[in-house]
Amino acid sequence: MKHNTLSILVENSAGVLSQVIRLFSRKGYNIDSLAVGETHDPTISRITVVLQGDAPAIRQISSQLHKLIPVHSVKVLAPDDSIERELILVKVKADSRSVRDEIIQLVGVFRANIIDIDLYTITVSIVGAGDKSRALLNLLDEFGILEIARTGMIALERGATTIYDRNKIEEEYDYGKHVL
Amino acid sequence: MKHNTLSILVENSAGVLSQVIRLFSRKGYNIDSLAVGETHDPTISRITVVLQGDAPAIRQISSQLHKLIPVHSVKVLAPDDSIERELILVKVKADSRSVRDEIIQLVGVFRANIIDIDLYTITVSIVGAGDKSRALLNLLDEFGILEIARTGMIALERGATTIYDRNKIEEEYDYGKHVL
Repeated sequence: MKHNTLSILVENSAGVLSQVIRLFSRKGYNIDSLAVGETHDPTISRITVVLQGDAPAIRQISSQLHKLIPVHSVKVLAPDDSIERELILVKVKADSRSVRDEIIQLVGVFRANIIDIDLYTITVSIVGAGDKSRALLNLLDEFGILEIARTGMIALERGATTIYDRNKIEEEYDYGKHVL
Repeated sequence: MKHNTLSILVENSAGVLSQVIRLFSRKGYNIDSLAVGETHDPTISRITVVLQGDAPAIRQISSQLHKLIPVHSVKVLAPDDSIERELILVKVKADSRSVRDEIIQLVGVFRANIIDIDLYTITVSIVGAGDKSRALLNLLDEFGILEIARTGMIALERGATTIYDRNKIEEEYDYGKHVL
């Protein structure tokens, strides 16, 4: 099944977030990742959801989201026209100088960053879009991953187009034409 | 009120996420940010919640989270012993060569990254822990921020301590002693 990214603008309150998530779970959608943060307007949050689903399923959940009053906007981001990024923090076992050296080198090759280091562990921050992060995680796994925290994917459309460019109604028509 | 960071390990399903969020909203807690991602074990997700609240309120919500069956672990991260990071994608108006130059310079000073650029806009990726990101966003705002997507904060403890080191019960006793 296809991997889909939905950007949703909602009123900023815990009740709204819960209402949105409940809709996904009630309808049986399996969410791969979820990130919620403030926008430039502190009364509005932007939710990014990545989920599996074919075109009709995504169209359906989008239209159901549209119907929720505190949802201002829903946009399905076309993968080719979007930039996706995720932040991953990963703590790796590094209890000898030679292992520490190896990890520091790998992190350099991948342009990731070391954000904490002590005698036994190294903590790395990785920003990526899937393949790069996966490759580095696989390599770090050889040393022993102790714990990991991931933000979930966030995404913006390429170029000058923004989530504010189309409103709910226009967008519903657009699904059929461009996005899916 | 204090800013608090909770790390929660839960079974990976949309229903569980919805259950956890609903608990926050039902109890009237105001969530500042929320990030959900897979851990190293694909059946377990890690939720990072940042919220306002005094010590008794945080102790209460933690103990209520503990009681949910699909919740494996809850940890309140002490700010001084944790590394927090957030990823922000921001699209800025840049419709002249001189503005483009200025933005590219600022991004360099802050060690942020340009991830998309066209004749009218520049999209920047920022990884930071609050102050640095806020400073750069304020500077970019002068050019005109068109849209923004934030992951919400994620965090790991410094050094070799991980979320797996203490189980539910031990942790409940620890709150009084160390964390709050």
